[in-house]
Amino acid sequence: MTYTRQLIDTYPAEINLDRAQLAEVIDALSACAQACSACADACLSESADALPRLARCIRDNLDCADICAATAAVLTRQTGYDARVTHAQVQAAAQATRTCGDSCAEHGETHAHCRVCEQACRETEQLLKDLLPQVEPSGQGPSRPSQAAPQT
Amino acid sequence: MTYTRQLIDTYPAEINLDRAQLAEVIDALSACAQACSACADACLSESADALPRLARCIRDNLDCADICAATAAVLTRQTGYDARVTHAQVQAAAQATRTCGDSCAEHGETHAHCRVCEQACRETEQLLKDLLPQVEPSGQGPSRPSQAAPQT
Amino acid sequence: MTYTRQLIDTYPAEINLDRAQLAEVIDALSACAQACSACADACLSESADALPRLARCIRDNLDCADICAATAAVLTRQTGYDARVTHAQVQAAAQATRTCGDSCAEHGETHAHCRVCEQACRETEQLLKDLLPQVEPSGQGPSRPSQAAPQT
Amino acid sequence: MTYTRQLIDTYPAEINLDRAQLAEVIDALSACAQACSACADACLSESADALPRLARCIRDNLDCADICAATAAVLTRQTGYDARVTHAQVQAAAQATRTCGDSCAEHGETHAHCRVCEQACRETEQLLKDLLPQVEPSGQGPSRPSQAAPQT
Repeated sequence: MTYTRQLIDTYPAEINLDRAQLAEVIDALSACAQACSACADACLSESADALPRLARCIRDNLDCADICAATAAVLTRQTGYDARVTHAQVQAAAQATRTCGDSCAEHGETHAHCRVCEQACRETEQLLKDLLPQVEPSGQGPSRPSQAAPQT
Repeated sequence: MTYTRQLIDTYPAEINLDRAQLAEVIDALSACAQACSACADACLSESADALPRLARCIRDNLDCADICAATAAVLTRQTGYDARVTHAQVQAAAQATRTCGDSCAEHGETHAHCRVCEQACRETEQLLKDLLPQVEPSGQGPSRPSQAAPQT
Repeated sequence: MTYTRQLIDTYPAEINLDRAQLAEVIDALSACAQACSACADACLSESADALPRLARCIRDNLDCADICAATAAVLTRQTGYDARVTHAQVQAAAQATRTCGDSCAEHGETHAHCRVCEQACRETEQLLKDLLPQVEPSGQGPSRPSQAAPQT
Repeated sequence: MTYTRQLIDTYPAEINLDRAQLAEVIDALSACAQACSACADACLSESADALPRLARCIRDNLDCADICAATAAVLTRQTGYDARVTHAQVQAAAQATRTCGDSCAEHGETHAHCRVCEQACRETEQLLKDLLPQVEPSGQGPSRPSQAAPQT
């Protein structure tokens, strides 16, 4: 059991989402951010001949790493949950993993690190899409409890 | 002239956005991320009596700081621009600054740091909303040039 | 095998460090950063009675999360390795995990999330200390190869 | 007056450092992190002919951006100040700005963005060195107050 799951299980208040699903998404986002940072650096160490074709891939790697890390941080916080922020950030991460996965796919035959990174992006994108309906802001009322955390 | 603007002016390829507007948004996002980190810490040092009411504000500060920093990083990158990622991330930042500004507004009368932080959030939110139409993915074609950067 | 290890194994140039050890440290830093972010938020959701005593723990959690994430990023990059930067950043992370582990230890009997987070900090601190001699800048010469990456 | 300074001036407890100096260092770190992110991307958009020589510069840019951002975050937090963490992290940032400034200096004649980024790194390195003696952990006693924040 990862620390992520253990921390979710010891969170002292209510959590609006399924705890197993939440832990899985957060761990996927962290792993994807890490894979993207590593793929950017691996691209950077490719031969002078190959490097120029990888410039966009590096850019998409860096975006995806930053966005996945921010999204993991937002999902990690349960205090004063606001569905509107969560939903918008999860959407941005779904797009970033899609774009980066597509970029890596263009180089997968030539560069093994792009193949691995594409896999991390695709897995994370799928988990984010599965999460989106769970973090949909409700149309019928406030998306966050009116009572401020912490509980007294 | 900030380093942000100087770096934009020395960028060696085309930029799809107005350079002055882009520099202004990036600098506002950086300043807002910084203000939110500082406001979270200032809240944390309030009296034991006041602190519990500030828990949600701290959470919103931390989210806003992370999201603004990631958005500044995405907007800073021009290589292989993808409007879909940019647009989704700018939307998430507009929501985060809105939510955090609202949270700070609840405490502005009592805590001066929340007043300052609210101002940073409101300013940034407005700049992000002004930027949104400029980063709208086109409905009629690919939102990113088909030619890979860098230019040869 | 984590993506971290897979990316290290597909890195296209030489790596100055033991690959298994490097992957282990990076994964520990990521897990520790995640645990610290979660512990900060769990503290924030504790009762109004408990929260004020946890303010310093939250601060140490946030520092440790930021420093571990930056250190993981530095260790992930192999292109143009500079032992002086790596060594200084690993030292900072060893101190941050020490300080945060000590803070969490003060609350471990009362709060289960602090117990879990302390464990993540202690493990990571030990791995960082084991790594320090491997990233020591050499006294006898340049700590980085004189030849610029990438290889031609 | 930047938001950084306004937030420092509205911090509700004691600050161990000179407030003007602290604000100046934090703002320099933020500006330097931003300049380094932008320089990395500008390098990435250079011609296929120039890009391979810039790989190490990009790597140093990315390290410097991550380390400066983490250092700004640590310096921003005043709650439960621990000189040992602050000092170690400031040292890492001094080294990162030194290394990145040196890398950019190698390309300053050819690339204007490297000239601007070198200036940001040199300025920040100097401010960090000036700060180091102020954050030295005392040899004669605990480097952090024995009383936990927040004040009651």
